[in-house]
Amino acid sequence: MSDITVTKVKQVGVLPTDKELGFGTIFTDHMFVMDYTTGKGWHSPRIVPYAECANYPAMIVFHYGQAIFEGMKAFRTEDNRICVFRPYEYLNRFNRSAEKLCIPKMDVEQIHDALFQLLALEKNWVPGQLGTSLYIRPFVVADEPHLGVKVADSFKLYIILSPVGAYYKTGFNPVSIKVEDKYVRAIKGGLGEAKTPANYAMSLAAQQDAYAEGFGQVLWLDAVHRKYIEEVGTMNILFKINGEIITPELNGSILGGITRKTVLELSRSWGLKTTERQISIDEVYDAYAKGQLDEVFGSGTAAVISPVGELSWKGQRIVINHNQTGPYAQKLFDYITGVQSGKIADQFGWMEEVR
Amino acid sequence: MSDITVTKVKQVGVLPTDKELGFGTIFTDHMFVMDYTTGKGWHSPRIVPYAECANYPAMIVFHYGQAIFEGMKAFRTEDNRICVFRPYEYLNRFNRSAEKLCIPKMDVEQIHDALFQLLALEKNWVPGQLGTSLYIRPFVVADEPHLGVKVADSFKLYIILSPVGAYYKTGFNPVSIKVEDKYVRAIKGGLGEAKTPANYAMSLAAQQDAYAEGFGQVLWLDAVHRKYIEEVGTMNILFKINGEIITPELNGSILGGITRKTVLELSRSWGLKTTERQISIDEVYDAYAKGQLDEVFGSGTAAVISPVGELSWKGQRIVINHNQTGPYAQKLFDYITGVQSGKIADQFGWMEEVR
Repeated sequence: MSDITVTKVKQVGVLPTDKELGFGTIFTDHMFVMDYTTGKGWHSPRIVPYAECANYPAMIVFHYGQAIFEGMKAFRTEDNRICVFRPYEYLNRFNRSAEKLCIPKMDVEQIHDALFQLLALEKNWVPGQLGTSLYIRPFVVADEPHLGVKVADSFKLYIILSPVGAYYKTGFNPVSIKVEDKYVRAIKGGLGEAKTPANYAMSLAAQQDAYAEGFGQVLWLDAVHRKYIEEVGTMNILFKINGEIITPELNGSILGGITRKTVLELSRSWGLKTTERQISIDEVYDAYAKGQLDEVFGSGTAAVISPVGELSWKGQRIVINHNQTGPYAQKLFDYITGVQSGKIADQFGWMEEVR
Repeated sequence: MSDITVTKVKQVGVLPTDKELGFGTIFTDHMFVMDYTTGKGWHSPRIVPYAECANYPAMIVFHYGQAIFEGMKAFRTEDNRICVFRPYEYLNRFNRSAEKLCIPKMDVEQIHDALFQLLALEKNWVPGQLGTSLYIRPFVVADEPHLGVKVADSFKLYIILSPVGAYYKTGFNPVSIKVEDKYVRAIKGGLGEAKTPANYAMSLAAQQDAYAEGFGQVLWLDAVHRKYIEEVGTMNILFKINGEIITPELNGSILGGITRKTVLELSRSWGLKTTERQISIDEVYDAYAKGQLDEVFGSGTAAVISPVGELSWKGQRIVINHNQTGPYAQKLFDYITGVQSGKIADQFGWMEEVR
């Protein structure tokens, strides 16, 4: 893409040591920015120094939440290549979220090329230790200053990059999860399947309550019957019951996770019975009572796989696999992170190299 | 409040003519800003020139929607005083919204005093023609730059002011409303009763569809049964059925409108039977069939009272009061705008003067 203007920083920064990496607090030298104006379309693609941006306080995103985002990762492989995990999956979802929020469609090829040009410039910011990565955050905000509820006539698309540390500082630690029975995240007819700020705003109070009660995450139930399982805070959820992998179907109110998709594809390729369907919290507790609840784990871009050691629903606690990481969660984690780090051959074509 | 620092513009602007006033696109010379930092509380209250503000692209509000707002109005009365309509009602609701969004509580007296100091400075920006006003938009955004879902540790509170024109350019025009059967705005356990961007993000696609079909607004039904009436796009809704005023009760998923409250208080003081309860769309259509649906109207800060001339639910259209503004909607509109403009004595103590 020849029309991206590039303005470089005068002095490049330095990638912190792995120990200094947290999640989402350190940013690389540059970012990609592009504007949308009604009548003009997406225009003025540019790579500029990462810095504060000037916006009017009346910008629509501050008041009416018209915004979307994505989250994906680039890795430094053992043989020192920089590769992105399934970029088109994330970018296509980005466009699906745009449609839900009445945000103008983007040209996926253009965003893809912009991302890869940015990554080529920021190669030195990609950490290499197992579990670390360069987190990629594309997002769009409505920046028209206007105090009436409406679809904006101007938007800004950003891609910012943040080197992140290992999500598990001490290896796999199974998480204790509260099954939420007070708050609701999303509903059919709402925005649950879009990656948009509204869904996360919905989760803040529940997350805060769960933390205060000693839980690590919240498991959401459906908004209508308050019994069918939806997803975890920032992950999809999967169950291994009597040898079968079961996860809630994409029903319109949950996010279609790329790691979820990866886990399902892998499980099918390994010959496991793998089912996407409605599953109730009662069914999970019944399976536990029958001794058939082998494993529970979350899937998401940040954590890849997150084993669940405990579920608590209306005060009823069940401990899964003796609160230990199950063998299947471990196998999935090892395989996916193995491909991401280049240790395992990329037979599914998930990784795309930055040249 | 002696600790508000004031930085004035070098050259004050000029209030446009009434004809040039739209809604929410023109802003006064100054705004109020205050910061929150965990451990330090709300601090650094200041009045500064209205201008673009610098924020990091990673700020939490852009990604996770942690934000709230309010909308109220100041009026220039016929005897040239500047008065605000029920400011404490709005500011107390602002704090209730804050709690829902895990935003630190504000000192209502402090915000009130800041607002009145700002208004005293901006008196010349308050238009005087009937129907015009100075729209007041207090809002809080989470401005901590951090790419993980969490309650922020820093926030900014703004109060910005926008002179606005008459909402009805050609007097009362009854609006045609689509009863929404595809999209859902909010649900019990969600954020429906908070004034937060998430609820408005939810409404964009439905609003866009309704406009395309020739409707002026959307009427939301409940998320579970899809039959109980919730609210209109940016208004509460009220029905006059067989002489009785009926409006949906505050059930947790609809906004507790200040104009709604005003209408209910007025109706009771006038001796009308006035009921807040669950009401289904079937009941409204039944009342219409029986010839008992006297009037339908919305209430909100922007429009005050908005008569509904037509409802369309799953293709079934009903025309209310011959698509004319009903006498009760007109009486309410005349009374409330009369008090606001100083033509009618303020016997309920709604108006607070800016000295």
